[in-house]
Amino acid sequence: MSWILDAGRVEDIARGAALLGTGGGGDPYIGALLARQALAEHGPVTAVTLEEVPDDAVVLTVAMMGAPTVMVEKLPSLKEVMAPVRAVGEYLGRPVTHVACAEVGGVNSTIPIAAAAALGLPLIDADGMGRAFPELQMVLPTLYGVTASPLALADEKGNVSVLNTVDNTWTERIARVACVEMGCSVIISGFPMDGATARAALVPDSLSHCGNIGSAILAAREEKRDPVGAIVELVRGRELFGGKVVDVQRGTTAGFARGRARIEAGSGAEASALELNFQNEHLVARTDTKVLVTAPDLIMVVDHDSGEPITTEALRYGQRVRVLAAPSDPRWHQPEALAMVGPRYFGYEMPSHRWDGSTDPEPATVAS
Amino acid sequence: MSWILDAGRVEDIARGAALLGTGGGGDPYIGALLARQALAEHGPVTAVTLEEVPDDAVVLTVAMMGAPTVMVEKLPSLKEVMAPVRAVGEYLGRPVTHVACAEVGGVNSTIPIAAAAALGLPLIDADGMGRAFPELQMVLPTLYGVTASPLALADEKGNVSVLNTVDNTWTERIARVACVEMGCSVIISGFPMDGATARAALVPDSLSHCGNIGSAILAAREEKRDPVGAIVELVRGRELFGGKVVDVQRGTTAGFARGRARIEAGSGAEASALELNFQNEHLVARTDTKVLVTAPDLIMVVDHDSGEPITTEALRYGQRVRVLAAPSDPRWHQPEALAMVGPRYFGYEMPSHRWDGSTDPEPATVAS
Repeated sequence: MSWILDAGRVEDIARGAALLGTGGGGDPYIGALLARQALAEHGPVTAVTLEEVPDDAVVLTVAMMGAPTVMVEKLPSLKEVMAPVRAVGEYLGRPVTHVACAEVGGVNSTIPIAAAAALGLPLIDADGMGRAFPELQMVLPTLYGVTASPLALADEKGNVSVLNTVDNTWTERIARVACVEMGCSVIISGFPMDGATARAALVPDSLSHCGNIGSAILAAREEKRDPVGAIVELVRGRELFGGKVVDVQRGTTAGFARGRARIEAGSGAEASALELNFQNEHLVARTDTKVLVTAPDLIMVVDHDSGEPITTEALRYGQRVRVLAAPSDPRWHQPEALAMVGPRYFGYEMPSHRWDGSTDPEPATVAS
Repeated sequence: MSWILDAGRVEDIARGAALLGTGGGGDPYIGALLARQALAEHGPVTAVTLEEVPDDAVVLTVAMMGAPTVMVEKLPSLKEVMAPVRAVGEYLGRPVTHVACAEVGGVNSTIPIAAAAALGLPLIDADGMGRAFPELQMVLPTLYGVTASPLALADEKGNVSVLNTVDNTWTERIARVACVEMGCSVIISGFPMDGATARAALVPDSLSHCGNIGSAILAAREEKRDPVGAIVELVRGRELFGGKVVDVQRGTTAGFARGRARIEAGSGAEASALELNFQNEHLVARTDTKVLVTAPDLIMVVDHDSGEPITTEALRYGQRVRVLAAPSDPRWHQPEALAMVGPRYFGYEMPSHRWDGSTDPEPATVAS
């Protein structure tokens, strides 16, 4: 059933998306600002379920691309958010009928709300990952053969580039260097899909899910319950670790915010320290002796008491945090998906460790 | 009057263009190979003068972009040459009617021949510079307010990117990083102009001029006359220096072939050594004590005896060469043109030195 997405729901969605964004997706409040502005100027957005999208729909994803460390200082305008959707529509020669989120993640769950409001289009209650990942080809539609192209990039200056590439990895490569040159943060739109393809390839109901998580965190806080308990229940995950951030190393390189954070537990804890490795998103959580969880499953950092999600660029020395893990969409555990988003892709020589401590089988290798 | 451009004329044009390309534009023989292949497969090209182009024509320039050091190892295909012209035509929603050269320079005078042949379009006997320059905004049409956008890039893999930017410098910036990522050598097409604008903005008859220079070099060689004398007469320039290449420093950085070459004269010469600084093209010619000539005027290196033009990537220790200078199109000496292609733009803190030893007036500066 379609529902009305108004300003009151934006903050819940942004908060829930900041959690499922596993550290990436940028500051949720910045994205919420823009969405609220768009809703105030253009009225509320109709959110439709995947089942309601007609087969002949023209669906595009909309997202911010770049380093979250830059996004926090470079807020896009509504013009910048509309430009790439329009450019792809013109390229296709067909009117775009629906907007969808490429990922859930602070800014990237609210930018599409702004785009839908400003363009007067319905927003699909779904996304391409069920979490956030750092590279643009890392969406479930890629596994379904959907091409990222034509994909448009737009910056705040008015520059637009439309890519038509031989595969989605090339879209990422060319878009990434253009993004860096255009100021390390751009709005992209692409992955044109008809309704039937969107139904098969996207993660259903993820905007609602984000909204529910966001409101559950607030409700628990108001009712003096532990927000982390409410989160763990909704994401069907577990609490991995709790402690104080004692070190954060972070650099913005090649268009990404890359780094690591170290969290030390108080006395009596099972493990004394946890290390998180991230590239926009948290990719690996490990103790000094053992890998606990890796991408594609979700590694989430929240404030110890308030349960407020903390993005990778907001991690600071001295923060008291809790680290949670949860399962990703099961399709991310297929071998071809793990080749795209598993720890080895990101340079970590280890199998995919699931949220519950089990590991995914490794692809068979030929003995040399 | 229009004329038929067939395979017999390609080599003359390539040789003359290698000279006027002032070291840039890539290996003329590579471009000639592709043009000859296109003419063999699709028949001869009609070259039309600027006067013959109708006012409502849709003119696009076509060029190879990248480092000549890479071009020599990565020959484009006819498919790659046609792709960006088609992409811009589709973007404009109007059929392209004429192809023109962006610059004269080895490959970039023959790639448009290949494009015109393969696309079945007339080629305008004109170009955008009357020489070669390293960055794409450096064409006379920029001075006439022609936008480079929409400009398309295509690589040999099949990737295409269409840029629509706020100014021509942004086209250069985004295209350059995309070019580097796509393999440091791509085919570009852009600068859409109607016939009236092309007539005002382009350098007329430059393909014919290149062909005439090329055939004059060959004729002088066959008749045992000095080819350099024939060149100097046709380019209305002078011989600056003669000697042996004793040092070449060259690197491919940020998508350009940058470097310097040192040439030492035999005993009795007026100056003992000449240094050339280049970024794809020769930009500065100076002795140890004096600047002789800078961009935008032409600095050309040819083989000492045969008069064969030597591109910057072909400069080698031990070559006996002669260095020539000639005037550029006079429009390059306007103040706004010098800001775009004068020595200061390229990082050389000196006024523009003309081919004849005079200097251009410097823009007035406010005393601090």
